[in-house]
Amino acid sequence: MADPRFFAVAGPFSLKELAEICGAEIGGGADPAMTVADVAPLDRAGPTQVSFLDNKRYIEQFRVSAAGACIVEAKYAKQAPAGMAPLITSNPHRAYALVAQAFYPAPARRSGRHPSAVVDPSARIGEGAEIGPGVVIGAGAEIGADCRIGANAAIGDGVVVGDATEIGANVTLSHCLVGKDCQIHAGVCIGNRGFGFTLDPEGYLDVPQLGRVIIEDGVEVGANSTIDRGSGPDTVIGAGSKIDNLVQIGHNVTLGRSCVLVGQSGIAGSAKLEDHVLMGGQAGVAGHLTIGAGARISGQAGVVRDVPPGLAVAGAPAMPIKEFFRLSAIWRRQVKARGKGDE
Amino acid sequence: MADPRFFAVAGPFSLKELAEICGAEIGGGADPAMTVADVAPLDRAGPTQVSFLDNKRYIEQFRVSAAGACIVEAKYAKQAPAGMAPLITSNPHRAYALVAQAFYPAPARRSGRHPSAVVDPSARIGEGAEIGPGVVIGAGAEIGADCRIGANAAIGDGVVVGDATEIGANVTLSHCLVGKDCQIHAGVCIGNRGFGFTLDPEGYLDVPQLGRVIIEDGVEVGANSTIDRGSGPDTVIGAGSKIDNLVQIGHNVTLGRSCVLVGQSGIAGSAKLEDHVLMGGQAGVAGHLTIGAGARISGQAGVVRDVPPGLAVAGAPAMPIKEFFRLSAIWRRQVKARGKGDE
Amino acid sequence: MADPRFFAVAGPFSLKELAEICGAEIGGGADPAMTVADVAPLDRAGPTQVSFLDNKRYIEQFRVSAAGACIVEAKYAKQAPAGMAPLITSNPHRAYALVAQAFYPAPARRSGRHPSAVVDPSARIGEGAEIGPGVVIGAGAEIGADCRIGANAAIGDGVVVGDATEIGANVTLSHCLVGKDCQIHAGVCIGNRGFGFTLDPEGYLDVPQLGRVIIEDGVEVGANSTIDRGSGPDTVIGAGSKIDNLVQIGHNVTLGRSCVLVGQSGIAGSAKLEDHVLMGGQAGVAGHLTIGAGARISGQAGVVRDVPPGLAVAGAPAMPIKEFFRLSAIWRRQVKARGKGDE
Repeated sequence: MADPRFFAVAGPFSLKELAEICGAEIGGGADPAMTVADVAPLDRAGPTQVSFLDNKRYIEQFRVSAAGACIVEAKYAKQAPAGMAPLITSNPHRAYALVAQAFYPAPARRSGRHPSAVVDPSARIGEGAEIGPGVVIGAGAEIGADCRIGANAAIGDGVVVGDATEIGANVTLSHCLVGKDCQIHAGVCIGNRGFGFTLDPEGYLDVPQLGRVIIEDGVEVGANSTIDRGSGPDTVIGAGSKIDNLVQIGHNVTLGRSCVLVGQSGIAGSAKLEDHVLMGGQAGVAGHLTIGAGARISGQAGVVRDVPPGLAVAGAPAMPIKEFFRLSAIWRRQVKARGKGDE
Repeated sequence: MADPRFFAVAGPFSLKELAEICGAEIGGGADPAMTVADVAPLDRAGPTQVSFLDNKRYIEQFRVSAAGACIVEAKYAKQAPAGMAPLITSNPHRAYALVAQAFYPAPARRSGRHPSAVVDPSARIGEGAEIGPGVVIGAGAEIGADCRIGANAAIGDGVVVGDATEIGANVTLSHCLVGKDCQIHAGVCIGNRGFGFTLDPEGYLDVPQLGRVIIEDGVEVGANSTIDRGSGPDTVIGAGSKIDNLVQIGHNVTLGRSCVLVGQSGIAGSAKLEDHVLMGGQAGVAGHLTIGAGARISGQAGVVRDVPPGLAVAGAPAMPIKEFFRLSAIWRRQVKARGKGDE
Repeated sequence: MADPRFFAVAGPFSLKELAEICGAEIGGGADPAMTVADVAPLDRAGPTQVSFLDNKRYIEQFRVSAAGACIVEAKYAKQAPAGMAPLITSNPHRAYALVAQAFYPAPARRSGRHPSAVVDPSARIGEGAEIGPGVVIGAGAEIGADCRIGANAAIGDGVVVGDATEIGANVTLSHCLVGKDCQIHAGVCIGNRGFGFTLDPEGYLDVPQLGRVIIEDGVEVGANSTIDRGSGPDTVIGAGSKIDNLVQIGHNVTLGRSCVLVGQSGIAGSAKLEDHVLMGGQAGVAGHLTIGAGARISGQAGVVRDVPPGLAVAGAPAMPIKEFFRLSAIWRRQVKARGKGDE
């Protein structure tokens, strides 16, 4: 299904192999030896393809799908049409991710450095790493094994990149240590001078920013996002965190493990997000705040106070989301009442 | 008028030529053979320059302008000062655009590839295309005739760029098909992995993003904007759409024809904008919504429900703009009443 | 203290030298010949390091700090622990900035152009300038003395960069004149076509954008920010202004001296900010407005009317900040009352 100009499909796999890959059980007496050649959405899949049902909204598509196999929860498996082999699991989205990863593994590295790359003699490049055309790597930098550094990326002096990390094209890294298995997408800037200066009547004076950015293992940073280095302390992005495109992270910010920051959200200097915090798109957190573990910040929310662990907040200024829904309802009533008065 | 370091002026043109170029009629008995050498604003134009009046606010400037010619609606033409030749049209802004394009045509391509560019042998480069210094073009990519690819841009494997399209410096393209006559400005990232992963307690797991980005003909994308590829379906930007700087477009989003997205607006995954939708600056549309044709979303609006065709909305959460104006008036009254109570 | 992979420490300095550098007075009978080797925060500093106390919140840390010296206001100096030499000043943050700059001066330029840079023969490069790997400099461009141009930056034809200015990696400059002593961070795009086209039913038609961007002296522009050139007039950034990351500035905008724009703020076309305006993160100013000198715009505010000089505004639509606080209090009361009603 995927455009072969951009994606190379692996496989085929037997139904049995797929069941093992994703931890599912073969239902409905289907033949474990059946051959599956690709993944596809329910409405486009054919008899050699595997699809998935993750959302009750698509149950009608499921009932009439021509997919040869389908990952599905047990409770829906009976509704599978004739000829569809159910792969039964409690978490179809996760199982689908595993199956799709099997069909579309990350492309192998083109090990070695392109002749047009400019690598300082004191830099160390790990085995199997792919250094793309036009890449610049500074003095003392260390690039781990099996990394990929995309075209025209600029890696500053002393920067460390962990094994198997992928750095996109046109990325700029400086003053940072990046962990293993990270994905830093195109255009990202990490390690710039934070926005630190004295704001006094004698004129602004830059305060040297002497910290670093620490990106722990397994972090993803979306295209054109920016993460400033610390002013003295470090800016830290916790392991497994997922950062979307055009996100801004100020100096000295610390993120715990597995935070999720949706596109265009921003975090001002010295704020602390504990583990598993979720920020919606275009949301903002003011400086020096603490956002407790598992807190959820809605899109466009403007957080100006600490948020306790687990709380969901919305609005600007942000308040508990239940209160924001109540406030929105109040607004609707006020507008309606006023509209009547105007007539 | 324009700084010759950056702009080369064409011409001169006779008044008759300009009238033809912009579809205007020469008024006030002006001499069609009169020579016009440049464009200029009303307050700075001299006798060899052509200006335009597009807004009643500038009528006083018009009355005393020294411009040799001026593009103007019929109803204002009589107020032209002595010595000014009116070019009469019903749409002066459009006519001015055409005249200014004649004086300042897009610079010709410097056909050929710069020796520092790294072009995969399997890539196809169209006739007359300009491939700038440091450009990287991947395997199987196709660059159309008369394209310009700016310095240090990175064009990934298999990417297709249509004829006469302009790609700015430091742009990153991957997993995308770009149409003809597009302008992709500096720093743009198109085709990155969408923000797709399973959000479950076992840890995030990336869901392979197997779609593409389709940019139809005549699209403009502003500097440092980001457009993610689809997860399976494609992300599609409809023909003639205008996207400003620092805009974020998530995976599977589809834009109809001639949409306008102002700076820093953002669209979450799988949302659909029909034709001619206008989004103001810093506005956001949540995932999976449908925004009807011709809808207008005000700046900073937060759209969390479908918007019917033609409706104008504002506020967060977004509501019909008339209601938002009413709500703002209610707020003003409440604040005022409270202020009195506090005294 | 700072990671030597990224920062080289100068010094040591005697206490007397430090006092002169930052305009402080040595208190408590400390020995002016005492040697100081580095800066460090109060809680981590040792006997050869200098710290500072800028905020009463840290007075307890100050009282027990092992720092050999500390920059401090006179009123707190008496509370210095035994063995700490006080450096007394009325503005500790500013004094610290000066001392930190002495210990961590900007790295010297690596004068000369990297062989991989592509510099048009007609471009002029000032003495002592550092032109990094992969840099592209167009025809007629002028790079001042002692500039640094970062890796893979693209400097367009005719662009002028003033003395001692620093241009980050992967920056794109076109149609602009940049002053002296500026810092343009990685990924910034300056001088692109503004978002100018006719919005009429016959289809969008680009209006040539014939102005420039003028960046005055001492301006800082944060990573991945974008500044469009004027449509005919210029876009102007006043001297000493500080612009954070991911900020968008539209065509014809003018900023006065020493404005501060925090991350992800945006200014629409033709707006004018007078001197010393402060915009918070994610705030927006609509087109064609005038924001008076010294006005302060809160984070996420949406400014849709002129703001008089010195006024602080907040909210969307923006209102005087006192009114916004009052409105927020009204909302809290309404939500609370409603919550009771619901029980």
